[in-house]
Amino acid sequence: VSGLQVLPVNGLPEITEGDDLGELIAGAAELEDGDIVVVAQKVVSKAEGRVLELDAIDVSSAAREIAAADGRDARQVQAVLDEAARIVRRRGGFVIAETRHGFVCASAGVDASNAPAPGQIVLLPLDPDASAAALRARLREVTGRELGVLVSDSFGRAWRQGTTDVAIGAAGVPVLLDLTGVRDSTGYELHATMIAVADEIAGAAELVMGKTNGIPAAIVRGLGLEGDGNARELVMPSDRDLFR
Amino acid sequence: VSGLQVLPVNGLPEITEGDDLGELIAGAAELEDGDIVVVAQKVVSKAEGRVLELDAIDVSSAAREIAAADGRDARQVQAVLDEAARIVRRRGGFVIAETRHGFVCASAGVDASNAPAPGQIVLLPLDPDASAAALRARLREVTGRELGVLVSDSFGRAWRQGTTDVAIGAAGVPVLLDLTGVRDSTGYELHATMIAVADEIAGAAELVMGKTNGIPAAIVRGLGLEGDGNARELVMPSDRDLFR
Repeated sequence: VSGLQVLPVNGLPEITEGDDLGELIAGAAELEDGDIVVVAQKVVSKAEGRVLELDAIDVSSAAREIAAADGRDARQVQAVLDEAARIVRRRGGFVIAETRHGFVCASAGVDASNAPAPGQIVLLPLDPDASAAALRARLREVTGRELGVLVSDSFGRAWRQGTTDVAIGAAGVPVLLDLTGVRDSTGYELHATMIAVADEIAGAAELVMGKTNGIPAAIVRGLGLEGDGNARELVMPSDRDLFR
Repeated sequence: VSGLQVLPVNGLPEITEGDDLGELIAGAAELEDGDIVVVAQKVVSKAEGRVLELDAIDVSSAAREIAAADGRDARQVQAVLDEAARIVRRRGGFVIAETRHGFVCASAGVDASNAPAPGQIVLLPLDPDASAAALRARLREVTGRELGVLVSDSFGRAWRQGTTDVAIGAAGVPVLLDLTGVRDSTGYELHATMIAVADEIAGAAELVMGKTNGIPAAIVRGLGLEGDGNARELVMPSDRDLFR
């Protein structure tokens, strides 16, 4: 590896439902073969119309009770409960949940920041791997380039402060690098070593995207790793999960 | 931000106790002001002599019992118990522990891969933030450059497959970017949003370092973020930790 470049995709407009993300990104960036295009979940969700009006949500008594604990919006809590397959932890109205995709994250991925308008919230894509694959196909169509695509989101972590961006959707990108059985430079055989390269790529992209400067996509160039995984492989299988 | 570069530091020799990492890195790389030098924990530990001979470890009956569960080396299990402040989870001889630094990771950071010689294991630095600060001071002395330094290690995550590199030591680097109260591009005020940029930087560096190709350091250039934190800030305070 001679080195990586991580480049912001500047100049994208506000994304709304139905927008052609592939065409917009292709028009804003000079893509090269082998580039990995990392797109923030928020814009993918907006393009796919995964946006709810808070006023249109029917609030259950459970959501009302949870929200009352610390003065949250019961409609937003209801959206979290609707998106959650399982509540992992809860403190007051703050909920860490497993989504239907198997991801464990705050609020089951429901978020009001960077929503199209006040009074709206944004949900995760229904199938972020499919979102990545569709965007990849569209980018290939528009640019003729062989690219990888990641859909990224900011997840908190157990035991560590702060969020890091991770991959929730992937296409044409190595996701897990399995080094089991490979020998290190001293000849020691590595055991059960898998590197979540897709999460590291998503985190690297976050460093040039930011949450507040309206840059929802970045390019990671020069990775030089072969592979084509999907982000569901990043979900720990339940039989190996010591934290269920 | 115009973009990041992530560059491997090629040509470093095998590191042994007492080596001057600062001089070696300065000799192997063209450093620039503002660069962040990311160094793998393994070489920091080796330079600091944090290496044990398995044969020199007195094995307790507890370690013998745990090791027997799946045929592990009882001496290595003993080293894990010695390094652990608390066992967080255990399945057979596989232990997830909280270290004395407060980090939660597999085997309390004890690892046999990339050890100087067979029959040896490598422990985490006693104070990785101090290791980072000392390396930073030495790099400034040798190069005259204002740099940041991260000490990185590969940690597993709850619920997600694979490891990502995170920061266990930091000096002269922004560690947590606190966006609480900042407004997004649509005017929405972000709540309790902190980004663990040091972990994202460490992960980006891993992409050019790898576990098996003997590249134990990398440079992240062009971040353009001010800040000077230490990696202990990345440990979730126990009153906010929902997973203790």
